[in-house]
Amino acid sequence: MKQTKLAIIGAGGLTGKELTKLLAHHPNFELVHVTSNQVDGKHIREVFPDLSHLPDLKFQKHDAPVPKEAGIVLATPNEVSLEKAPIFLKEGRKVIDLSGTFRLHNKAKFETAYQFSHTEFEMMDQVVFGLPELFREKLKNTNFVSNPGCYATSAILPIALLGNLRKEIQDPVIVDAKSGVSGAGGRTEEIKFAYTNVYENFRAYKILTHQHEPEMEEYGFVGTEEKEIHFTPHLLPIYRGILATIYVSFPKGISAEQVREKFQSAAEKEPFVRLYQTPEEVEIRKVQNTNYLDLGFRIKGNTLVIVSALDNLVKGAAGQALQNLNLMYGYPETEGLVAL
Amino acid sequence: MKQTKLAIIGAGGLTGKELTKLLAHHPNFELVHVTSNQVDGKHIREVFPDLSHLPDLKFQKHDAPVPKEAGIVLATPNEVSLEKAPIFLKEGRKVIDLSGTFRLHNKAKFETAYQFSHTEFEMMDQVVFGLPELFREKLKNTNFVSNPGCYATSAILPIALLGNLRKEIQDPVIVDAKSGVSGAGGRTEEIKFAYTNVYENFRAYKILTHQHEPEMEEYGFVGTEEKEIHFTPHLLPIYRGILATIYVSFPKGISAEQVREKFQSAAEKEPFVRLYQTPEEVEIRKVQNTNYLDLGFRIKGNTLVIVSALDNLVKGAAGQALQNLNLMYGYPETEGLVAL
Amino acid sequence: MKQTKLAIIGAGGLTGKELTKLLAHHPNFELVHVTSNQVDGKHIREVFPDLSHLPDLKFQKHDAPVPKEAGIVLATPNEVSLEKAPIFLKEGRKVIDLSGTFRLHNKAKFETAYQFSHTEFEMMDQVVFGLPELFREKLKNTNFVSNPGCYATSAILPIALLGNLRKEIQDPVIVDAKSGVSGAGGRTEEIKFAYTNVYENFRAYKILTHQHEPEMEEYGFVGTEEKEIHFTPHLLPIYRGILATIYVSFPKGISAEQVREKFQSAAEKEPFVRLYQTPEEVEIRKVQNTNYLDLGFRIKGNTLVIVSALDNLVKGAAGQALQNLNLMYGYPETEGLVAL
Amino acid sequence: MKQTKLAIIGAGGLTGKELTKLLAHHPNFELVHVTSNQVDGKHIREVFPDLSHLPDLKFQKHDAPVPKEAGIVLATPNEVSLEKAPIFLKEGRKVIDLSGTFRLHNKAKFETAYQFSHTEFEMMDQVVFGLPELFREKLKNTNFVSNPGCYATSAILPIALLGNLRKEIQDPVIVDAKSGVSGAGGRTEEIKFAYTNVYENFRAYKILTHQHEPEMEEYGFVGTEEKEIHFTPHLLPIYRGILATIYVSFPKGISAEQVREKFQSAAEKEPFVRLYQTPEEVEIRKVQNTNYLDLGFRIKGNTLVIVSALDNLVKGAAGQALQNLNLMYGYPETEGLVAL
Repeated sequence: MKQTKLAIIGAGGLTGKELTKLLAHHPNFELVHVTSNQVDGKHIREVFPDLSHLPDLKFQKHDAPVPKEAGIVLATPNEVSLEKAPIFLKEGRKVIDLSGTFRLHNKAKFETAYQFSHTEFEMMDQVVFGLPELFREKLKNTNFVSNPGCYATSAILPIALLGNLRKEIQDPVIVDAKSGVSGAGGRTEEIKFAYTNVYENFRAYKILTHQHEPEMEEYGFVGTEEKEIHFTPHLLPIYRGILATIYVSFPKGISAEQVREKFQSAAEKEPFVRLYQTPEEVEIRKVQNTNYLDLGFRIKGNTLVIVSALDNLVKGAAGQALQNLNLMYGYPETEGLVAL
Repeated sequence: MKQTKLAIIGAGGLTGKELTKLLAHHPNFELVHVTSNQVDGKHIREVFPDLSHLPDLKFQKHDAPVPKEAGIVLATPNEVSLEKAPIFLKEGRKVIDLSGTFRLHNKAKFETAYQFSHTEFEMMDQVVFGLPELFREKLKNTNFVSNPGCYATSAILPIALLGNLRKEIQDPVIVDAKSGVSGAGGRTEEIKFAYTNVYENFRAYKILTHQHEPEMEEYGFVGTEEKEIHFTPHLLPIYRGILATIYVSFPKGISAEQVREKFQSAAEKEPFVRLYQTPEEVEIRKVQNTNYLDLGFRIKGNTLVIVSALDNLVKGAAGQALQNLNLMYGYPETEGLVAL
Repeated sequence: MKQTKLAIIGAGGLTGKELTKLLAHHPNFELVHVTSNQVDGKHIREVFPDLSHLPDLKFQKHDAPVPKEAGIVLATPNEVSLEKAPIFLKEGRKVIDLSGTFRLHNKAKFETAYQFSHTEFEMMDQVVFGLPELFREKLKNTNFVSNPGCYATSAILPIALLGNLRKEIQDPVIVDAKSGVSGAGGRTEEIKFAYTNVYENFRAYKILTHQHEPEMEEYGFVGTEEKEIHFTPHLLPIYRGILATIYVSFPKGISAEQVREKFQSAAEKEPFVRLYQTPEEVEIRKVQNTNYLDLGFRIKGNTLVIVSALDNLVKGAAGQALQNLNLMYGYPETEGLVAL
Repeated sequence: MKQTKLAIIGAGGLTGKELTKLLAHHPNFELVHVTSNQVDGKHIREVFPDLSHLPDLKFQKHDAPVPKEAGIVLATPNEVSLEKAPIFLKEGRKVIDLSGTFRLHNKAKFETAYQFSHTEFEMMDQVVFGLPELFREKLKNTNFVSNPGCYATSAILPIALLGNLRKEIQDPVIVDAKSGVSGAGGRTEEIKFAYTNVYENFRAYKILTHQHEPEMEEYGFVGTEEKEIHFTPHLLPIYRGILATIYVSFPKGISAEQVREKFQSAAEKEPFVRLYQTPEEVEIRKVQNTNYLDLGFRIKGNTLVIVSALDNLVKGAAGQALQNLNLMYGYPETEGLVAL
């Protein structure tokens, strides 16, 4: 008997689908309500024929009444999250939002990044940023979580795990990241994601203007002085996975031992952080369909090069959301996230 | 000095682009006019940045006046070809049409296959089907050619080259063909051709209902009694190339020597037909960016299995069109088609 | 507490890995022993970094002693299975063999297909062929199962499910199947599986000579007169999945209702068979990472075209093995195979 | 009648094949001799079935006598180039070497990068580095050219074209480059280039230790004070093409106008350099099968981000070699390199 009921608003997208799949394994969460304005009325097994033995549910409209006792996952566009989050919170529900709406505390940066005016900005005082490696205790005691961006997670964790070494960093930190198609938009009807435009091709996009850049700055440097990050995303002709190559300058120098000590201690303590002996061992294939963030690094002169990898749909979205839900509801943090 | 001027109506698609590229090499044809209702006004170098040093041309509307002396290539939808072909022919121009409009002599089969009523069907008396291996002499003496379909070419040639052995065939002949994305629609804005729907996937489509099936029947059995063909196309997650696996039943039996003799003599005589010792040697990679049709076969019991391969954009479309243009204008048949 | 212990001999390959992953979900089976002569001594988490939270096991040599109480999965080459199966059976263990060694009851066909002399052929009297849809009751009462081939499953089931309609079939049945790389050899060090030889390419192999052809004949026609099958496998540039296009001739004709009745009744009864309205809906993507066999069909004249799809590593190998293990050990047949 | 004879030593690899294809178009060069120790004795059409109508040549051993009047292309491993280059030069031939052997003037850096002792280092006084955009006049008057590396070209040109702006650069310059499989090794028999290890994957390699790093430093800063470059190559799951994202720090600031003026003037003057309005327009697909280097850039704060792209087999190898051969022999620089 699964004791906690969940609803996913906006379950028809790639992230909603991934979370639906993960929840089918979970011993404690029961998915009781899924919405999608595009496929409402269809059975969940019809929409996801590649997921077997899903719950016996039909998609409903976003505005359909949600079962009273259900916690809420918002896998919705920014505008919908902005409208729905306060409503569900007022109903006394736990809410986790997967959009970018409640991630940034700097309103000016938010409005530049997301290009719309934030009408519920006072809610930024109560929301917890859903990165368990940084905010575990807060996540155990909140009703409202903002789940990090996929690119953002691939850069925030490697930088934040440097701890007090961050004081010596000269900005800008350079984040050169490469993502599979499922993490780079996912609006598959757009011509730029047509097979003939992605296959046997590679390109950068939103260079220095991507909305995850300020998110990396705020949380990568949490607890210390914020520094500038320059972020360039690229589109890989693969389905899932992000690899980020991060260049950090230490004018006073840095030793491999100093870095290894920080990363090693995180890898030992954190269930979903792994450290490799060399950065060449980090590869997307090793993290696909897992909730891991993999790390490796090399130093030359005063430059530290970190390579990180994660699955944009798991640690970059649905897996991290489930890790947060486990914390919010008091279940073991790794429940439903092992042996995917 | 290139002596023959050509215009491509509908040059903005994949076939038009391929022919534009081929003509840039050709010593005798000069491309003087290109049209596209989608990109009209743009320079050809802007639309095809991956083709270097193209002629100094801008795309015009389909209805723009065509230079008087130019021969016409119609790389247009069926409806446009139906309207334009008679007009250009009346102007005394040579015309080659790459659509399906003028391929079938059986009006009922045409209307079933193409789902529209053919208002110029009397033109079927004058048009020559542009398969040089079958109709070379007629192609040298006509002003009006209908260029074959890509799938159709991959099946017609292997069957027709069996010559008088075809009398012993028991129908149906089974054509199980697999095509890259550029030959299977090309309407890249359709969701079914989105990266996430093609990559790491494979499926059949238009099973036993594809419009190339009657074309295979008419020309595969030209000169002998027509037999039934059952054709199943499939979508490969590659860009270009078709491989067809063809199953032919000979109730009285057939020997490898009989088949090899037929194919060998074609391979020796035909500049663009190659025969391999085994059918396993036929592969798409060997024909990409060439005008070849490759062949191999094996016999077991009374069944002959033929494997054929071609590049759908070259021997299946633009290359074959150029081969036909060479014949129509009296240039060496292989001119501009070697060393692509 | 998982009550049944299992050992996988030859766990370092793709099938062994897939089964390892599936068992990590299963509430009743505990993996206690894994062998590989190539990676012996290494921890299972080191060899499969993309599988999370595996059991705490190290690979041992094939000849290392197996814990007494463990059931045996042989994911080994034919020669090793031939040697090991009788030994483990004599020890009173349950054994499931994933190689081709114990599949064929016709010794001449076996030796032609597998090119070696079978020294334990009398064991063919006791082995049960592991296709639950055909041999469910026998599988519940045996210690020795031979798991079917991946291509074979994709053809046997669609044919066998036709039931008494099979009497009217005129041979040969044509099976034109297409497989991803993981099912088509997997010996990744071979040059023919190099990236540059598979990517943007497609080819047939072992045409009419593949070792799964006699397996299709024996079991596709089990319970009725055996007919000839002509089988052509092809290599798809994808990782996992098989799609088979099967052409069946009925000289006396056949109706869609007759076929649909057979397939529909199987789909209703069988947990892992799905039937679609049209054969175009069957696609590899829908069965990847599931234990389903998907089916669709169309009839034209006297020809029935069936399209089937499965995941070669799941329903074609490890998933089917687990389905069989569930039956052999009395667990619910679908346990550990839902919500993969 | 083609007046200049050429021999390719080591023509069996990807670069040799590409050059063979390019020469088949060229009006002045005639390929008269090709060698390969792996496929010697085979006809060139047998080895390259996807290239049509090649010269009537058979591969010979590397040590076979070369026709007297032929110029030499060395597409050989470093050790072979080191041995052969002085011999051919002493015979009075023109020689272009495509290996890394004669690229670096700093012997210590060479031996670190290439891991062997250079026994002909005095030849570095006479060799010309084959980057026409930098050394055009010298290339017209030399018998001995060292052709640049593919990655190196993608970084050297963007940096060198900054001209006197380079004085203000604070090192290190960061070059984060991504290459298709054909440029990243090409030794296809290695397990790391197996389909299953490249497909749906992405990884960095030789981080800060790649042999092209010192080449970028020497020639990117030619004519000004040399600065440090930090280079990370990555393996893309595509066949051909390199995209480099280059991060350059200007502590005193830099304006878009300053950079655009430099790049624009190069794009106007150079036949194979193209500049885009935005760096997002640069993509691998636009340079495949062309000899272009494409450029775009963006500035944020004191950081200049340049995106460059080229085809590693054309501008990164065989195309650049032909551009150099044109200069060495006095033919028009773009001959045989347009309309590929």
